[in-house]
Amino acid sequence: MTENTSSSNYVLRQLVSLGSASSMVEIILKMLGHAQFFDDFTMDDIVMLSKFMAVYRAEPGQTIIREGDHDDYMLFILQGRISIVKTDGNGERRAMTSVGPGATLGEMSMIDGEPRFATCIAIDTTTIAVFARDSMVKIIMEEPALGSKILIKLVTLLSQRLRETSVSLLQHLERSNTV
Amino acid sequence: MTENTSSSNYVLRQLVSLGSASSMVEIILKMLGHAQFFDDFTMDDIVMLSKFMAVYRAEPGQTIIREGDHDDYMLFILQGRISIVKTDGNGERRAMTSVGPGATLGEMSMIDGEPRFATCIAIDTTTIAVFARDSMVKIIMEEPALGSKILIKLVTLLSQRLRETSVSLLQHLERSNTV
Repeated sequence: MTENTSSSNYVLRQLVSLGSASSMVEIILKMLGHAQFFDDFTMDDIVMLSKFMAVYRAEPGQTIIREGDHDDYMLFILQGRISIVKTDGNGERRAMTSVGPGATLGEMSMIDGEPRFATCIAIDTTTIAVFARDSMVKIIMEEPALGSKILIKLVTLLSQRLRETSVSLLQHLERSNTV
Repeated sequence: MTENTSSSNYVLRQLVSLGSASSMVEIILKMLGHAQFFDDFTMDDIVMLSKFMAVYRAEPGQTIIREGDHDDYMLFILQGRISIVKTDGNGERRAMTSVGPGATLGEMSMIDGEPRFATCIAIDTTTIAVFARDSMVKIIMEEPALGSKILIKLVTLLSQRLRETSVSLLQHLERSNTV
Protein backbone atom coordinates (compact mmCIF):
# COMPACT_ATOMS: atom_id res chain seq x y z
CA MET A 1 0.00 0.00 0.00
CA THR A 2 1.59 3.23 -1.14
CA GLU A 3 1.15 6.46 0.73
CA ASN A 4 -1.05 9.09 -0.82
CA THR A 5 0.61 12.12 -2.27
CA SER A 6 -0.98 15.48 -2.92
CA SER A 7 -1.31 14.53 -6.57
CA SER A 8 -4.41 12.64 -5.56
CA ASN A 9 -6.24 15.90 -5.05
CA TYR A 10 -4.41 17.84 -7.71
CA VAL A 11 -6.21 16.35 -10.66
CA LEU A 12 -9.64 16.24 -9.06
CA ARG A 13 -9.30 19.86 -7.93
CA GLN A 14 -9.21 20.92 -11.58
CA LEU A 15 -12.68 19.45 -12.09
CA VAL A 16 -16.06 20.91 -11.09
CA SER A 17 -17.28 19.19 -7.93
CA LEU A 18 -20.98 18.35 -8.06
CA GLY A 19 -21.04 17.20 -4.42
CA SER A 20 -21.84 13.88 -2.82
CA ALA A 21 -23.34 11.27 -5.03
CA SER A 22 -26.14 10.74 -2.51
CA SER A 23 -27.77 13.99 -3.60
CA MET A 24 -28.22 12.52 -7.04
CA VAL A 25 -29.09 8.93 -6.39
CA GLU A 26 -31.90 9.03 -8.92
CA ILE A 27 -29.62 10.24 -11.68
CA ILE A 28 -27.01 7.70 -10.67
CA LEU A 29 -29.54 4.88 -10.59
CA LYS A 30 -30.65 5.84 -14.09
CA MET A 31 -27.11 6.24 -15.39
CA LEU A 32 -25.68 3.19 -13.69
CA GLY A 33 -28.78 1.12 -14.41
CA HIS A 34 -27.12 -0.45 -17.44
CA ALA A 35 -23.62 -0.61 -15.97
CA GLN A 36 -22.45 -4.19 -15.73
CA PHE A 37 -20.70 -3.42 -12.46
CA PHE A 38 -24.03 -2.88 -10.69
CA ASP A 39 -25.89 -5.80 -12.26
CA ASP A 40 -26.84 -7.49 -9.02
CA PHE A 41 -26.88 -4.45 -6.73
CA THR A 42 -30.25 -3.60 -5.21
CA MET A 43 -31.52 -0.03 -5.15
CA ASP A 44 -30.63 0.06 -1.43
CA ASP A 45 -27.08 -0.97 -2.26
CA ILE A 46 -26.70 1.87 -4.75
CA VAL A 47 -28.26 4.39 -2.36
CA MET A 48 -25.79 3.32 0.33
CA LEU A 49 -22.84 3.27 -2.05
CA SER A 50 -23.73 6.75 -3.30
CA LYS A 51 -23.06 8.12 0.18
CA PHE A 52 -19.45 7.08 -0.30
CA MET A 53 -18.97 8.62 -3.73
CA ALA A 54 -18.41 12.17 -4.95
CA VAL A 55 -19.48 13.42 -8.36
CA TYR A 56 -17.34 15.62 -10.64
CA ARG A 57 -17.75 17.18 -14.04
CA ALA A 58 -14.87 17.41 -16.52
CA GLU A 59 -14.84 19.54 -19.66
CA PRO A 60 -13.52 18.23 -23.00
CA GLY A 61 -9.74 17.90 -22.88
CA GLN A 62 -9.48 17.88 -19.08
CA THR A 63 -7.34 15.22 -17.45
CA ILE A 64 -9.19 13.01 -14.98
CA ILE A 65 -6.40 10.55 -14.16
CA ARG A 66 -2.74 11.23 -14.91
CA GLU A 67 -0.24 8.44 -15.69
CA GLY A 68 2.36 8.03 -12.93
CA ASP A 69 0.32 9.82 -10.25
CA HIS A 70 -0.07 8.26 -6.85
CA ASP A 71 -3.73 8.39 -6.03
CA ASP A 72 -6.25 5.89 -4.94
CA TYR A 73 -9.69 6.37 -6.38
CA MET A 74 -11.59 4.52 -9.06
CA LEU A 75 -14.40 6.10 -11.01
CA PHE A 76 -17.65 5.27 -12.73
CA ILE A 77 -18.46 7.18 -15.90
CA LEU A 78 -21.96 8.57 -15.60
CA GLN A 79 -22.03 10.66 -18.78
CA GLY A 80 -19.62 11.42 -21.62
CA ARG A 81 -16.63 9.62 -23.08
CA ILE A 82 -13.08 9.32 -21.80
CA SER A 83 -9.95 8.64 -23.84
CA ILE A 84 -7.21 6.43 -22.35
CA VAL A 85 -3.71 7.46 -23.30
CA LYS A 86 -0.41 5.74 -22.45
CA THR A 87 3.14 7.00 -22.85
CA ASP A 88 5.23 4.53 -24.86
CA GLY A 89 8.90 3.65 -24.46
CA ASN A 90 9.89 6.65 -26.62
CA GLY A 91 7.94 9.06 -24.43
CA GLU A 92 5.20 9.43 -27.03
CA ARG A 93 1.56 9.40 -26.01
CA ARG A 94 -0.62 6.84 -27.71
CA ALA A 95 -4.41 6.71 -27.52
CA MET A 96 -5.23 3.17 -26.43
CA THR A 97 -9.01 3.16 -26.33
CA SER A 98 -12.01 5.20 -25.22
CA VAL A 99 -14.82 4.30 -22.84
CA GLY A 100 -18.28 5.64 -22.09
CA PRO A 101 -21.13 5.59 -19.54
CA GLY A 102 -21.17 2.58 -17.24
CA ALA A 103 -17.44 1.91 -17.61
CA THR A 104 -15.16 1.86 -14.59
CA LEU A 105 -11.63 3.26 -14.58
CA GLY A 106 -8.71 3.31 -12.20
CA GLU A 107 -9.43 0.18 -10.15
CA MET A 108 -5.82 -0.99 -10.18
CA SER A 109 -4.39 2.00 -8.31
CA MET A 110 -7.41 2.10 -6.00
CA ILE A 111 -6.58 -1.46 -5.03
CA ASP A 112 -2.80 -1.71 -5.04
CA GLY A 113 -1.77 1.93 -4.51
CA GLU A 114 0.75 1.72 -7.36
CA PRO A 115 1.18 4.68 -9.76
CA ARG A 116 -1.44 5.27 -12.42
CA PHE A 117 -0.90 3.09 -15.47
CA ALA A 118 -2.38 5.49 -18.04
CA THR A 119 -3.87 8.95 -18.47
CA CYS A 120 -7.62 9.46 -18.80
CA ILE A 121 -8.86 12.55 -20.65
CA ALA A 122 -12.45 13.71 -21.09
CA ILE A 123 -13.45 13.64 -24.76
CA ASP A 124 -16.69 15.54 -24.19
CA THR A 125 -18.36 17.00 -21.10
CA THR A 126 -18.10 14.09 -18.72
CA THR A 127 -19.67 13.32 -15.35
CA ILE A 128 -17.91 10.83 -13.10
CA ALA A 129 -18.64 9.30 -9.69
CA VAL A 130 -15.42 8.96 -7.71
CA PHE A 131 -14.95 6.09 -5.27
CA ALA A 132 -11.80 6.30 -3.13
CA ARG A 133 -9.95 3.59 -1.26
CA ASP A 134 -10.85 5.21 2.09
CA SER A 135 -14.51 4.74 1.23
CA MET A 136 -13.90 1.13 0.26
CA VAL A 137 -12.26 0.49 3.65
CA LYS A 138 -15.14 2.23 5.44
CA ILE A 139 -17.77 0.18 3.61
CA ILE A 140 -15.96 -3.07 4.42
CA MET A 141 -15.90 -2.09 8.11
CA GLU A 142 -19.36 -0.57 8.40
CA GLU A 143 -21.37 -2.44 5.77
CA PRO A 144 -19.64 -5.81 5.35
CA ALA A 145 -22.33 -7.32 3.14
CA LEU A 146 -22.12 -4.43 0.66
CA GLY A 147 -18.34 -4.48 1.04
CA SER A 148 -18.19 -8.13 -0.03
CA LYS A 149 -20.49 -7.42 -2.95
CA ILE A 150 -18.18 -4.66 -4.21
CA LEU A 151 -15.07 -6.77 -3.65
CA ILE A 152 -16.61 -9.70 -5.55
CA LYS A 153 -17.43 -7.33 -8.43
CA LEU A 154 -13.88 -5.96 -8.45
CA VAL A 155 -12.37 -9.42 -8.34
CA THR A 156 -14.58 -10.53 -11.25
CA LEU A 157 -13.80 -7.40 -13.28
CA LEU A 158 -10.05 -7.79 -12.80
CA SER A 159 -10.19 -11.49 -13.55
CA GLN A 160 -11.97 -10.81 -16.85
CA ARG A 161 -9.52 -8.06 -17.80
CA LEU A 162 -6.58 -10.30 -16.91
CA ARG A 163 -8.00 -13.06 -19.11
CA GLU A 164 -8.49 -10.67 -22.05
CA THR A 165 -5.04 -9.12 -21.65
CA SER A 166 -3.40 -12.54 -21.34
CA VAL A 167 -5.13 -13.71 -24.52
CA SER A 168 -3.94 -10.58 -26.38
CA LEU A 169 -0.41 -11.03 -25.07
CA LEU A 170 -0.30 -14.66 -26.19
CA GLN A 171 -1.64 -13.80 -29.63
CA HIS A 172 1.08 -11.18 -30.05
CA LEU A 173 3.75 -13.58 -28.84
CA GLU A 174 2.59 -16.21 -31.30
CA ARG A 175 2.46 -13.73 -34.15
CA SER A 176 5.96 -12.47 -33.45
CA ASN A 177 7.22 -16.06 -33.23
CA THR A 178 5.69 -16.86 -36.61
CA VAL A 179 7.22 -13.85 -38.36
CA MET B 1 -21.13 -17.79 -13.41
CA THR B 2 -20.78 -21.04 -15.32
CA GLU B 3 -22.23 -24.29 -14.08
CA ASN B 4 -19.84 -26.87 -12.80
CA THR B 5 -19.28 -29.91 -14.92
CA SER B 6 -17.95 -33.26 -13.81
CA SER B 7 -14.54 -32.25 -15.11
CA SER B 8 -14.16 -30.39 -11.87
CA ASN B 9 -13.79 -33.64 -10.00
CA TYR B 10 -12.16 -35.56 -12.80
CA VAL B 11 -8.73 -34.04 -12.43
CA LEU B 12 -8.69 -33.94 -8.65
CA ARG B 13 -9.85 -37.57 -8.50
CA GLN B 14 -6.59 -38.61 -10.15
CA LEU B 15 -4.64 -37.14 -7.23
CA VAL B 16 -4.06 -38.60 -3.76
CA SER B 17 -6.37 -36.90 -1.27
CA LEU B 18 -4.65 -36.07 1.99
CA GLY B 19 -7.89 -34.94 3.65
CA SER B 20 -8.99 -31.65 5.08
CA ALA B 21 -6.35 -29.02 5.48
CA SER B 22 -7.39 -28.51 9.08
CA SER B 23 -5.70 -31.75 10.07
CA MET B 24 -2.40 -30.27 8.98
CA VAL B 25 -2.63 -26.68 10.05
CA GLU B 26 0.88 -26.77 11.47
CA ILE B 27 2.37 -27.94 8.20
CA ILE B 28 0.30 -25.41 6.32
CA LEU B 29 1.33 -22.61 8.65
CA LYS B 30 4.95 -23.52 8.10
CA MET B 31 4.59 -23.90 4.37
CA LEU B 32 2.42 -20.88 3.84
CA GLY B 33 4.37 -18.81 6.31
CA HIS B 34 6.40 -17.22 3.53
CA ALA B 35 3.56 -17.06 1.02
CA GLN B 36 2.81 -13.48 0.07
CA PHE B 37 -0.90 -14.27 -0.07
CA PHE B 38 -1.04 -14.83 3.70
CA ASP B 39 1.17 -11.90 4.69
CA ASP B 40 -1.33 -10.24 6.98
CA PHE B 41 -3.34 -13.28 7.99
CA THR B 42 -3.25 -14.18 11.67
CA MET B 43 -2.73 -17.73 12.82
CA ASP B 44 -6.46 -17.86 13.66
CA ASP B 45 -7.27 -16.80 10.10
CA ILE B 46 -5.19 -19.62 8.65
CA VAL B 47 -6.64 -22.17 11.07
CA MET B 48 -10.14 -21.09 10.06
CA LEU B 49 -9.29 -21.03 6.36
CA SER B 50 -7.76 -24.51 6.61
CA LYS B 51 -11.17 -25.87 7.51
CA PHE B 52 -12.33 -24.84 4.05
CA MET B 53 -9.44 -26.37 2.12
CA ALA B 54 -8.58 -29.91 1.05
CA VAL B 55 -5.04 -31.13 0.52
CA TYR B 56 -3.91 -33.32 -2.39
CA ARG B 57 -0.67 -34.86 -3.52
CA ALA B 58 0.32 -35.07 -7.18
CA GLU B 59 3.14 -37.18 -8.58
CA PRO B 60 5.56 -35.86 -11.22
CA GLY B 61 3.80 -35.50 -14.57
CA GLN B 62 0.28 -35.51 -13.15
CA THR B 63 -2.15 -32.87 -14.36
CA ILE B 64 -3.58 -30.67 -11.61
CA ILE B 65 -5.54 -28.22 -13.75
CA ARG B 66 -6.47 -28.88 -17.38
CA GLU B 67 -6.87 -26.10 -19.94
CA GLY B 68 -10.48 -25.69 -21.09
CA ASP B 69 -11.98 -27.51 -18.09
CA HIS B 70 -14.88 -25.98 -16.24
CA ASP B 71 -14.03 -26.11 -12.58
CA ASP B 72 -13.93 -23.62 -9.85
CA TYR B 73 -11.12 -24.10 -7.39
CA MET B 74 -7.90 -22.23 -6.83
CA LEU B 75 -4.91 -23.79 -5.16
CA PHE B 76 -1.95 -22.96 -2.98
CA ILE B 77 1.26 -24.84 -3.64
CA LEU B 78 2.53 -26.25 -0.35
CA GLN B 79 5.45 -28.33 -1.69
CA GLY B 80 6.94 -29.04 -5.11
CA ARG B 81 6.93 -27.22 -8.43
CA ILE B 82 4.23 -26.94 -11.06
CA SER B 83 4.69 -26.23 -14.76
CA ILE B 84 2.15 -24.03 -16.55
CA VAL B 85 1.49 -25.05 -20.14
CA LYS B 86 -0.71 -23.33 -22.71
CA THR B 87 -1.90 -24.57 -26.10
CA ASP B 88 -1.02 -22.08 -28.84
CA GLY B 89 -3.01 -21.22 -31.96
CA ASN B 90 -1.45 -24.18 -33.82
CA GLY B 91 -2.53 -26.62 -31.14
CA GLU B 92 0.98 -26.97 -29.80
CA ARG B 93 1.64 -26.95 -26.08
CA ARG B 94 4.11 -24.40 -24.81
CA ALA B 95 5.59 -24.27 -21.32
CA MET B 96 4.92 -20.73 -20.11
CA THR B 97 6.50 -20.74 -16.66
CA SER B 98 6.80 -22.80 -13.50
CA VAL B 99 5.91 -21.93 -9.92
CA GLY B 100 6.75 -23.27 -6.48
CA PRO B 101 5.68 -23.26 -2.82
CA GLY B 102 3.62 -20.24 -1.76
CA ALA B 103 2.33 -19.56 -5.28
CA THR B 104 -1.40 -19.53 -6.01
CA LEU B 105 -2.92 -20.94 -9.19
CA GLY B 106 -6.34 -20.98 -10.80
CA GLU B 107 -7.88 -17.87 -9.23
CA MET B 108 -9.43 -16.69 -12.49
CA SER B 109 -11.71 -19.69 -12.96
CA MET B 110 -12.47 -19.82 -9.23
CA ILE B 111 -13.73 -16.27 -9.56
CA ASP B 112 -15.37 -16.02 -12.96
CA GLY B 113 -16.29 -19.65 -13.66
CA GLU B 114 -14.84 -19.43 -17.18
CA PRO B 115 -12.84 -22.36 -18.62
CA ARG B 116 -9.29 -22.93 -17.42
CA PHE B 117 -6.79 -20.75 -19.23
CA ALA B 118 -3.83 -23.11 -19.02
CA THR B 119 -2.78 -26.57 -17.90
CA CYS B 120 -0.83 -27.09 -14.66
CA ILE B 121 1.37 -30.17 -14.37
CA ALA B 122 3.34 -31.34 -11.33
CA ILE B 123 7.09 -31.26 -12.03
CA ASP B 124 7.99 -33.17 -8.88
CA THR B 125 5.95 -34.64 -6.04
CA THR B 126 3.66 -31.74 -5.21
CA THR B 127 1.32 -31.01 -2.34
CA ILE B 128 -1.48 -28.52 -2.93
CA ALA B 129 -4.24 -27.00 -0.79
CA VAL B 130 -7.43 -26.66 -2.83
CA PHE B 131 -9.83 -23.81 -2.17
CA ALA B 132 -13.13 -24.03 -4.06
CA ARG B 133 -15.62 -21.33 -4.91
CA ASP B 134 -18.25 -22.94 -2.64
CA SER B 135 -15.87 -22.49 0.28
CA MET B 136 -15.27 -18.87 -0.66
CA VAL B 137 -19.03 -18.25 -0.67
CA LYS B 138 -19.40 -20.00 2.70
CA ILE B 139 -16.61 -17.96 4.29
CA ILE B 140 -18.13 -14.71 3.01
CA MET B 141 -21.47 -15.69 4.57
CA GLU B 142 -20.20 -17.24 7.80
CA GLU B 143 -16.97 -15.35 8.46
CA PRO B 144 -17.39 -11.97 6.75
CA ALA B 145 -14.20 -10.46 8.21
CA LEU B 146 -12.05 -13.34 6.93
CA GLY B 147 -14.07 -13.28 3.69
CA SER B 148 -13.17 -9.62 3.11
CA LYS B 149 -9.54 -10.32 3.89
CA ILE B 150 -9.41 -13.07 1.26
CA LEU B 151 -11.27 -10.96 -1.29
CA ILE B 152 -8.89 -8.04 -0.72
CA LYS B 153 -5.95 -10.38 -1.24
CA LEU B 154 -7.46 -11.76 -4.44
CA VAL B 155 -8.24 -8.28 -5.74
CA THR B 156 -4.65 -7.17 -5.03
CA LEU B 157 -3.16 -10.27 -6.62
CA LEU B 158 -5.23 -9.88 -9.78
CA SER B 159 -4.50 -6.18 -9.97
CA GLN B 160 -0.76 -6.84 -9.82
CA ARG B 161 -0.96 -9.57 -12.45
CA LEU B 162 -3.06 -7.36 -14.70
CA ARG B 163 -0.48 -4.59 -14.37
CA GLU B 164 2.40 -6.95 -15.23
CA THR B 165 0.53 -8.51 -18.15
CA SER B 166 -0.46 -5.07 -19.47
CA VAL B 167 3.14 -3.89 -19.32
CA SER B 168 4.30 -7.01 -21.22
CA LEU B 169 1.57 -6.55 -23.81
CA LEU B 170 2.52 -2.91 -24.39
CA GLN B 171 6.20 -3.79 -24.70
CA HIS B 172 5.40 -6.37 -27.34
CA LEU B 173 3.11 -3.98 -29.18
CA GLU B 174 5.84 -1.34 -29.22
CA ARG B 175 8.44 -3.80 -30.35
CA SER B 176 6.28 -5.06 -33.20
CA ASN B 177 5.52 -1.47 -34.23
CA THR B 178 9.20 -0.66 -34.36
CA VAL B 179 10.11 -3.67 -36.49
